[in-house]
Amino acid sequence: MKIQPVIMSGGSGTRLWPLSRKTRPKQFLNLVSDRSLFQETILRLDDGGKNFAPPLVICGRGHAGLVADQLDAIGVKAADIILEPCPRNTAAVAAVAAAWVTGNNKDALALIAPADHHVEDASGFRRNALTGAAAAADGAIVTFGIKPTHPHTGYGYIQSAEEISGGVYRVASFREKPDARTASDYLSKGGYYWNAGIFLYHPTAMLDAFAAYAPKIAEGAQKALAASTPENGARLLDEKIFSETPSDSIDYAIMEKTDKAAVVAPVDVGWTDIGSWSEATTDPDSAGHMTVDSANVTLRSDGPVIGAVGVDNLIIVATGDAVLVARKDRAQDVRAIVDELKRRGREDLL
Amino acid sequence: MKIQPVIMSGGSGTRLWPLSRKTRPKQFLNLVSDRSLFQETILRLDDGGKNFAPPLVICGRGHAGLVADQLDAIGVKAADIILEPCPRNTAAVAAVAAAWVTGNNKDALALIAPADHHVEDASGFRRNALTGAAAAADGAIVTFGIKPTHPHTGYGYIQSAEEISGGVYRVASFREKPDARTASDYLSKGGYYWNAGIFLYHPTAMLDAFAAYAPKIAEGAQKALAASTPENGARLLDEKIFSETPSDSIDYAIMEKTDKAAVVAPVDVGWTDIGSWSEATTDPDSAGHMTVDSANVTLRSDGPVIGAVGVDNLIIVATGDAVLVARKDRAQDVRAIVDELKRRGREDLL
Repeated sequence: MKIQPVIMSGGSGTRLWPLSRKTRPKQFLNLVSDRSLFQETILRLDDGGKNFAPPLVICGRGHAGLVADQLDAIGVKAADIILEPCPRNTAAVAAVAAAWVTGNNKDALALIAPADHHVEDASGFRRNALTGAAAAADGAIVTFGIKPTHPHTGYGYIQSAEEISGGVYRVASFREKPDARTASDYLSKGGYYWNAGIFLYHPTAMLDAFAAYAPKIAEGAQKALAASTPENGARLLDEKIFSETPSDSIDYAIMEKTDKAAVVAPVDVGWTDIGSWSEATTDPDSAGHMTVDSANVTLRSDGPVIGAVGVDNLIIVATGDAVLVARKDRAQDVRAIVDELKRRGREDLL
Repeated sequence: MKIQPVIMSGGSGTRLWPLSRKTRPKQFLNLVSDRSLFQETILRLDDGGKNFAPPLVICGRGHAGLVADQLDAIGVKAADIILEPCPRNTAAVAAVAAAWVTGNNKDALALIAPADHHVEDASGFRRNALTGAAAAADGAIVTFGIKPTHPHTGYGYIQSAEEISGGVYRVASFREKPDARTASDYLSKGGYYWNAGIFLYHPTAMLDAFAAYAPKIAEGAQKALAASTPENGARLLDEKIFSETPSDSIDYAIMEKTDKAAVVAPVDVGWTDIGSWSEATTDPDSAGHMTVDSANVTLRSDGPVIGAVGVDNLIIVATGDAVLVARKDRAQDVRAIVDELKRRGREDLL
């Protein structure tokens, strides 16, 4: 049974401002290597056609050209590219993916993965996906429980219950982002894993779950796909139908309600959600920048040269029209800057 | 007896990088108000023709157009504009000024002032200049002793001796930039003042001093002026002669040797040498920038919007092609960044 990769590329990446912009959000930036996170994700789920099918890409309407260019650059031909006329969160994407796979790659399992994660060990990740495949074929909705390396308070956690088969467990509970003390408890107790937001399922299992817990989302997604129209070499979901489809996360809409949830754990592949600048690294080609008596400084630029003198624990990001300087442990709050720009109507900088 | 202002505008202002560039060094930037330091200096020495003559400007060859534009913008016509084909430090400028005044405004005193200082109380400064005029007419080379507000280690100090006339003292000694302890001693002892690098003298007195202590500089300056040629509406010093004239500061070449040195003190006019970013303030029109949970941050930009999150005690300066982030007490070391750019041959950023 083949696995159909579905690359969720609709994120906005506001916490990676000012490099991440509406016209080129973070998944399309070379943040960790000389490939974009999107390209890395595509290649991570490519084993030359053995177990993984060519990818289905779901992205924002404005990024059709960017997606096509970035796929070309790595020599990958997508099975299809679906354009969202407006963002409708991950539940709708999961339902669209289930509907598309049912219609186009019957019998395959869908593996839906955000386009903006970084994984050190790509083949290790594929092995973990194959580990979950049997359970998914049996009707489980499989999540991936990342082995926590520290009590991170920015991720949700998955608590595992009894083993279903080798390396796959029933999910006991999903836990939202914990406070520092709770996160420490999770680590010392064991059996808690970071929720990577990646899901493996048979389309029928997912559509059954939608019918039970979120029928309007499934209905909207299926109808929007059925009424889709060609645009820029891709397939645009019907704007009216999709915009009226309820917006919710797959976690809230399905995962926290279904009794079919399973988790592959522990997944130990060097996974990082590049959620903010604190998880990004200095430019690979940052030789042009200059630091004097500075330590623990992350420098990023799409052009301007950066000079830092006598500073530490900072993130400095420069573009030709905007500069961010943030203390590393405040990287989450870059969103406040973006919110302020919105309030001021500075669309040119978003 | 009139005072002939001579505005020394040849500085490079490297410590104000990246706003200060070869093509527009700091004296031509609006660093403290909506006028440049150069324009402020010109206007500070303008009393409508009562005691102060129209200014003589001495600047780098490449800045003739900038000087003309900035004079036009404030409606001032210079008595003359002299272009230096290469920088030769302040002694040569003082000698050129003495020679020019002798030839063009006989009987006037020369008041030579750097174009890159800020003074809060302009009329107060003019009063101090008039205070020194009688002594200068009598042959003294008059300096201005700024009342120190704190034990600054970045300025030279002037130690005063006995009073010559009301508010004018003989100079006991010039002291180079002191260490913190010595500077504190100066303040507690009293009779020590910051050396503003501004000089008032009769041209004959200065040329006599040059004849005694630095005859080659005076000879080079006088000959370079005599052989000057018109260029861009200004007067270009002869390149060959001026480039062979020894380069030295007026302090070393003359002031530390002459027994004619006098000091007007205490000068209490809100004087600041804008020597580095630590003396500059945030843009007057910085409303476009955004700070979140940040304190004591100086923001400057010639275009890019700056966002700061969770930082303090920083200078952040942004241009379209370069960004500086420096701890405030390390502002002096911006020069190290500029030196590194030179080493790398990045002329485009200097």
